[in-house]
Amino acid sequence: MKFQRLALIGCGLMGGSFALALRQAGLVQHITGFSASDKTRQRAVELQVIDQACNSVAEAVKGADLVLLAVPVGAMHSSFAALSDSLAPQALLMDVGSTKCDVISAARAGLGERLNCLVPAHPIAGKEVAGIEHAEAALYRERRTILTPLPQNSIRQIKIASEVWTAIGCHVSHMTPEAHDATFAAVSHLPHLLAFAAVNALTAQPQGAAFLEMAGPGFRDFSRIAASDPVVWRDILNANHTEVLAQLGHFRAALDQFETSLSQRNTQALQALIEQASGVRSAWALQAGNACTQNSETRPS
Amino acid sequence: MKFQRLALIGCGLMGGSFALALRQAGLVQHITGFSASDKTRQRAVELQVIDQACNSVAEAVKGADLVLLAVPVGAMHSSFAALSDSLAPQALLMDVGSTKCDVISAARAGLGERLNCLVPAHPIAGKEVAGIEHAEAALYRERRTILTPLPQNSIRQIKIASEVWTAIGCHVSHMTPEAHDATFAAVSHLPHLLAFAAVNALTAQPQGAAFLEMAGPGFRDFSRIAASDPVVWRDILNANHTEVLAQLGHFRAALDQFETSLSQRNTQALQALIEQASGVRSAWALQAGNACTQNSETRPS
Repeated sequence: MKFQRLALIGCGLMGGSFALALRQAGLVQHITGFSASDKTRQRAVELQVIDQACNSVAEAVKGADLVLLAVPVGAMHSSFAALSDSLAPQALLMDVGSTKCDVISAARAGLGERLNCLVPAHPIAGKEVAGIEHAEAALYRERRTILTPLPQNSIRQIKIASEVWTAIGCHVSHMTPEAHDATFAAVSHLPHLLAFAAVNALTAQPQGAAFLEMAGPGFRDFSRIAASDPVVWRDILNANHTEVLAQLGHFRAALDQFETSLSQRNTQALQALIEQASGVRSAWALQAGNACTQNSETRPS
Repeated sequence: MKFQRLALIGCGLMGGSFALALRQAGLVQHITGFSASDKTRQRAVELQVIDQACNSVAEAVKGADLVLLAVPVGAMHSSFAALSDSLAPQALLMDVGSTKCDVISAARAGLGERLNCLVPAHPIAGKEVAGIEHAEAALYRERRTILTPLPQNSIRQIKIASEVWTAIGCHVSHMTPEAHDATFAAVSHLPHLLAFAAVNALTAQPQGAAFLEMAGPGFRDFSRIAASDPVVWRDILNANHTEVLAQLGHFRAALDQFETSLSQRNTQALQALIEQASGVRSAWALQAGNACTQNSETRPS
């Protein structure tokens, strides 16, 4: 498996890292790139992430046998429409969107007869800092990538898609788009929303800044995802709002149990609730790949 | 500043690490220790954390010029009562409790005329794994310790307390007990409660285990504190329940704003809420000591 030409649509952290990783693995000859921002396009060339900056999506995609769409979820629809006419019938097209049902819906509307080119992908990787400057070939190493293939995909195409992610260090899983969106509402989208809300709850208080001065490593890790990119996360939460709101309902029920036990000074119930959480989280940490790094294992008290 | 004899009451992660750090810094000649568990006491001797295991609090404390009380907040009251008669008038007594108003109230009830010996302390350090086995001399390095001195303390005594923590690597701050408890309800106790509730919300769903299989590094860091010790955290949340419930109110208000913007598909309001959180959290990360480690900077998407 080797590609003649990768077209990168969106030259940010995710796309840039994919390009660097593919090049490092020796899987691609030439990389074209498009970004809505002139400056980003030029920076991507300067940083040798792409070989050639293009002035349009269509120009970048022309002649590519591999296309990665790495734009915020909200920009997927227009991107699909912009590339469908230039996309070669045999090209492999993948996105890196954090939600899948809405991306597939946008693809149905925008790709026309090229819908079968798309193998929807979600690599579970990233940093809370965005942008091409932070792109690195190692971003996807030892991470998981979820593929949610379409009925229109060929077995061969799904196999190649899987091999691409494996070649740059990912463990690949397959899910339905619906199961994907329910799962990530629970383990990613809701946690982001909670971290955002926790930071805003501090800011809303007059002493918020003084409180933050005293925050330690526990708060640091708990709130790290609150620093995530606002546009990216606006789009994710909005695209998956039904599942996120359902998860919020489950969370509120769990929160109510804590509030009741605290208000009633019911220490036995409180301990039981904490034991349940602590047991589940400790067991999860023992699974492969879930251990915290040495440095982040510190707990505030 | 050098101590003849440190008495360690409670031979767990926090106490054990303090003993190791003090010995490494060459600040103590002899260390006695008491733990409610025979096994822990013996293990502390085997691991050379303490020199001598004692059969009672009183025996450990006798002749000590420095006493560290490192037991769960709920066990403070009985510990103060058990040591007051054996405590030398010139001894420096410190606790490591995560709440301060209740510890001081327990000290008033249990210490009698030795109340002036206590300089209440809260080192912001730890791990989510408990126990003497995980004790390490480096635990307090580059961490913050809050002292909440009593009106009964002498200037000299407060200075020595401060020097002890500084000598083992801490930055020392002073606060009133009330300000301490309000601050840590906001930046530590509530985040723990939210992390516990988030894990329980997953567990409550039939697909919870399958969801957890797919969780990535963002969930890992967000939920790390949910693995904390149940008895320790039952006591902290219970001791500081008034402030924790007040913070929960602020959090619910912030959460409601997110829920409203999501339900109404108000993407502009949603983006503004996320921008606020992301801006505050990003600025906080730029302050000294708040940066995530390289490995934990990855973000799930």
